[in-house]
Amino acid sequence: MPVVIETIHSQVLQGNPLNDAHERRVPIYLPPDYEHTEARYPVVYFLAGFSGGGVYLLGESLWGETLPQRVDRLVRSRAIQPLIVVMPDCITRLGGSQYINSTATGRYADHVVHELVPFIDAHYRTRPEREQRVVMGKSSGGYGATVLAMRAPEVFGLAVDHSGDKYFELCHRADIPGAAAALAAYQHSAARFLSGFPHPPAERGRHWFTLVHLLANAACYSPNPAAAIGFDLPFDEYTAELRPDVWARWLAHDPIELVAAHAEALRALRLYFLDCGRWDEHHLQYGARIYSKRLQDLGIAHTYEEFDGGHSNVAHRYEVSLRAVSAALSP
Amino acid sequence: MPVVIETIHSQVLQGNPLNDAHERRVPIYLPPDYEHTEARYPVVYFLAGFSGGGVYLLGESLWGETLPQRVDRLVRSRAIQPLIVVMPDCITRLGGSQYINSTATGRYADHVVHELVPFIDAHYRTRPEREQRVVMGKSSGGYGATVLAMRAPEVFGLAVDHSGDKYFELCHRADIPGAAAALAAYQHSAARFLSGFPHPPAERGRHWFTLVHLLANAACYSPNPAAAIGFDLPFDEYTAELRPDVWARWLAHDPIELVAAHAEALRALRLYFLDCGRWDEHHLQYGARIYSKRLQDLGIAHTYEEFDGGHSNVAHRYEVSLRAVSAALSP
Amino acid sequence: MPVVIETIHSQVLQGNPLNDAHERRVPIYLPPDYEHTEARYPVVYFLAGFSGGGVYLLGESLWGETLPQRVDRLVRSRAIQPLIVVMPDCITRLGGSQYINSTATGRYADHVVHELVPFIDAHYRTRPEREQRVVMGKSSGGYGATVLAMRAPEVFGLAVDHSGDKYFELCHRADIPGAAAALAAYQHSAARFLSGFPHPPAERGRHWFTLVHLLANAACYSPNPAAAIGFDLPFDEYTAELRPDVWARWLAHDPIELVAAHAEALRALRLYFLDCGRWDEHHLQYGARIYSKRLQDLGIAHTYEEFDGGHSNVAHRYEVSLRAVSAALSP
Amino acid sequence: MPVVIETIHSQVLQGNPLNDAHERRVPIYLPPDYEHTEARYPVVYFLAGFSGGGVYLLGESLWGETLPQRVDRLVRSRAIQPLIVVMPDCITRLGGSQYINSTATGRYADHVVHELVPFIDAHYRTRPEREQRVVMGKSSGGYGATVLAMRAPEVFGLAVDHSGDKYFELCHRADIPGAAAALAAYQHSAARFLSGFPHPPAERGRHWFTLVHLLANAACYSPNPAAAIGFDLPFDEYTAELRPDVWARWLAHDPIELVAAHAEALRALRLYFLDCGRWDEHHLQYGARIYSKRLQDLGIAHTYEEFDGGHSNVAHRYEVSLRAVSAALSP
Repeated sequence: MPVVIETIHSQVLQGNPLNDAHERRVPIYLPPDYEHTEARYPVVYFLAGFSGGGVYLLGESLWGETLPQRVDRLVRSRAIQPLIVVMPDCITRLGGSQYINSTATGRYADHVVHELVPFIDAHYRTRPEREQRVVMGKSSGGYGATVLAMRAPEVFGLAVDHSGDKYFELCHRADIPGAAAALAAYQHSAARFLSGFPHPPAERGRHWFTLVHLLANAACYSPNPAAAIGFDLPFDEYTAELRPDVWARWLAHDPIELVAAHAEALRALRLYFLDCGRWDEHHLQYGARIYSKRLQDLGIAHTYEEFDGGHSNVAHRYEVSLRAVSAALSP
Repeated sequence: MPVVIETIHSQVLQGNPLNDAHERRVPIYLPPDYEHTEARYPVVYFLAGFSGGGVYLLGESLWGETLPQRVDRLVRSRAIQPLIVVMPDCITRLGGSQYINSTATGRYADHVVHELVPFIDAHYRTRPEREQRVVMGKSSGGYGATVLAMRAPEVFGLAVDHSGDKYFELCHRADIPGAAAALAAYQHSAARFLSGFPHPPAERGRHWFTLVHLLANAACYSPNPAAAIGFDLPFDEYTAELRPDVWARWLAHDPIELVAAHAEALRALRLYFLDCGRWDEHHLQYGARIYSKRLQDLGIAHTYEEFDGGHSNVAHRYEVSLRAVSAALSP
Repeated sequence: MPVVIETIHSQVLQGNPLNDAHERRVPIYLPPDYEHTEARYPVVYFLAGFSGGGVYLLGESLWGETLPQRVDRLVRSRAIQPLIVVMPDCITRLGGSQYINSTATGRYADHVVHELVPFIDAHYRTRPEREQRVVMGKSSGGYGATVLAMRAPEVFGLAVDHSGDKYFELCHRADIPGAAAALAAYQHSAARFLSGFPHPPAERGRHWFTLVHLLANAACYSPNPAAAIGFDLPFDEYTAELRPDVWARWLAHDPIELVAAHAEALRALRLYFLDCGRWDEHHLQYGARIYSKRLQDLGIAHTYEEFDGGHSNVAHRYEVSLRAVSAALSP
Repeated sequence: MPVVIETIHSQVLQGNPLNDAHERRVPIYLPPDYEHTEARYPVVYFLAGFSGGGVYLLGESLWGETLPQRVDRLVRSRAIQPLIVVMPDCITRLGGSQYINSTATGRYADHVVHELVPFIDAHYRTRPEREQRVVMGKSSGGYGATVLAMRAPEVFGLAVDHSGDKYFELCHRADIPGAAAALAAYQHSAARFLSGFPHPPAERGRHWFTLVHLLANAACYSPNPAAAIGFDLPFDEYTAELRPDVWARWLAHDPIELVAAHAEALRALRLYFLDCGRWDEHHLQYGARIYSKRLQDLGIAHTYEEFDGGHSNVAHRYEVSLRAVSAALSP
């Protein structure tokens, strides 16, 4: 199964504020017949969830499939048409970029749209028109798929959003008490926590992951160059009281809030597929329901499915969306 | 150990909207020497938490103490001075009244202040002055102690609030996703859920208790005589989206919001003791921290303690507060 | 609803090794028409589970029923015939006696059979023949019902065993690792643990209850007057290695092992009703299946039902068994 | 960082009963200066735990290190001397071979000892004497390290056993109730379960992993060519009752039971390092304590350490053992 790992030298990520590498390793899955033909292929940009992406999608496990293994099986069995799948690396040392530009993390939306897509089209036999280009993702990557579809309609003509972050009032806000609890071990100071980050595993307390998730999101949603840590927290580190002004900046990134202003872009999608587990542990099914209702109110065609399941072990859902993608792409 | 159970025929609870009994069984603990002397005693009104109170405080267990057993031990060992402890019954079929008046539940604040206190003073040898009358509670009862201290300063001169509900933005709001999940089994309809309430135990799903807790609070905080169920929900039953107007009515009952308007009443307290577990499962430690800060900013004397522990198994904390109460009462 | 609490002065429990009271408070439920008639009634002896029994069965709760409340409802609705229900108090400071005689706890089987039953028959209008006397219980009380039915066939003619302890190889043995973990905080010494027992709630660690359950069972199953704590542990306190000789003494009390020798007694039962939750957290469904198979092999008539549920919240099952009891009792 | 992946064509695994591949991909870490020198290096054979090993050790993650990344860091920082690390692939479709020979899985011990070690010594600049060869592993791999040290003393002169399977009476036996519960969904039939194995993730029930773990162990410990599934289960599929004869065959593989017969081999080790987390979720700390005691009684030199932690996230412990290994190897 051919998977090429390209190293992309990003311009826009050079000198990024978190000192993350600007060289990015991007795996690219090529369909079985790629090397035997002169054909050009549609491309799926698959955006991974928090703390994942790029080469982290390649780790094999005994009873599972990697993303390329899964796609390859679907292509070989003719369940879907041959596709190229690109796995962008938009990871930061805090866990992720939400696929947006931020002064606290870097210009990751620009990286995908203005660097990676042209690179792929220049180096691989792609169908380089938007009607043949898909942005797809899960969780934070589902969020990324939705906001890139909103902001780069000239680039992506199809979008797939699996269990994406929406309705921050439920999904992200629920992190606050755990994050504050984790900060207690660091004298209620995010700066102190970050100075030793990521800490050895044995030192990571119960709510460590929740805190990191919240800090990563704060770097994306409420950056502040004047702040010592580069971004603002939406809550008081000791009392956990919400800071309404910072929180408002988060909400401005919520798809629920963004959708009205980007209705035209979303209407132009050839396919907009969304789903969520009925028992999502991060309450994302509620955001999905609200969002689907907003789409409907705005006359934006889309498919929304709820399935029995939670937020994990949902890779089998990619088969549903990829079939829809395959059908929507012109033959 | 003398515990008398009085049956109080309440006027204000007659014809209450939930059809709860207006006859209330109220246990009263009398100190060991009560029947041998002519002395008069200070009175503690102990307000129980959600789904508890009254005779439910008398259920014995092998390795625990009931409230009267605990107080009796403290009195007999002279750790505290002799006291009368009254255990009001402000339970509703939904679980509780939060010790406030509501058109959806009944006039429970009035019942305590205008019926129960006079009854006790009339029938028992109490010290009937506010300086010798204590309102004390845990969880919802802690909330009750705080709001009764605010609203009835002429009645209560001391207040003890253990792990009380505060900062609804964290403690109550966190119930919403679970409550919405529980409603899914009832076609997303609270009315349907309530029609079969309380349901046999075997039919109570995973989030049953969370939903009941939220409905009970809605009956207290956002009553609406025009609504079919008598009150408004602060969220959409299908999407879980917050209803800001209803939520604002909840927030108007949050001690965090109430405190400024009642500063004078609280300043008049001889003792205001608050505590909370550092790891409270309902995040009440954050509300307690915010509230303590507000009290400090308003110049309201109080004691706030945080202890290692959560929201349950905290009855040992009553010993700390009762000692403080005993010391604050004039001999 | 008439519930009388008798205080029984036990002879056989005087000077018991755990210094538990020999005066026992025994609640007795009398049917609604008891005081208006001269009729005599069948009697159910209801044996509670670990850490429960006697007056602990009387603690009321908002959305539940106490045992007497439940029986009373069934009798008044004529779902079952009028019955007397006696709630023996065979509790020890370690949590329970398993309703057997032990040199480490006391002669609790004798107390029930030779003291309590005669007392009840002497003081209440009972039907004093074995065909009208039922032994019934849940969990440890289910175990008690089964072993009393085996050992006192002249006393009990019907037996009901809900989720009773059986197949100790699974149910009790699973306590060992947790018990050993709990002992770590006490220098791996049960004697040290017991010296401070039951400890204040705030000091009880994660596996505290598991350890107490195991110690209580050891006092019942492997007493040893020569041991400092009065009984032997079936495992090494530091390595948790099984002590086969002590464990063999436990197994001798397992209904799975006992049944063959008591087949005749069990065959004489007018009704032998057993059930268990399909998902019992203590794996008791497996013991129940094995036991039911043994009964079948031995030609012992019985009813065995499995229901969807675990080990808790199963009081609704009493309605099933009490209907069977009511039907089996001669009118 | 040089990691070579060799494909080994195994003779002994050809035609293995589970139809697992006999071509095995074996990653080999080479120290930084390997290609610049003519030096020969000691070799560590690292045996992974259940469901892992081989290329599965190479999956990268954001805040973790793969085994080769960890070793490379230690070598480059001169914390340990340069080493070759070989990562054998002894995985089976059921999850693992326990690194032993079995008619139900294959000759995995032979594969490591008689095929892989000679291959490595033939193709890499190793120090091919037993005094420079280490067998090391975690969990099932810790078990493998211990039994290979017992059985191939001429091959391995040092052994490291992290959290290895020991005292099956606790660690493996605890799987039985969960495994039986998982079988309930397959009509209590392991054969039926295995016919659809490994099942799509969405169909894997709560105890799926426990059952697979037990079946894999049964294939290793109680193979039976006459059985339809190739091995015997140590319990009844419906009642979960232990089958003592089959269980005895398992116990014959327990290091606790094996140690006495292999004392001489273990005494010949230059280093025998063992550790376990004090709170191991599989109770392995107890087995480790018993085993360490047995070693001591038999006069077998070893190091046993307990650390604060459980069974997961213990890779930081490899640093402790690798330092000990490095010190024990002659310079």
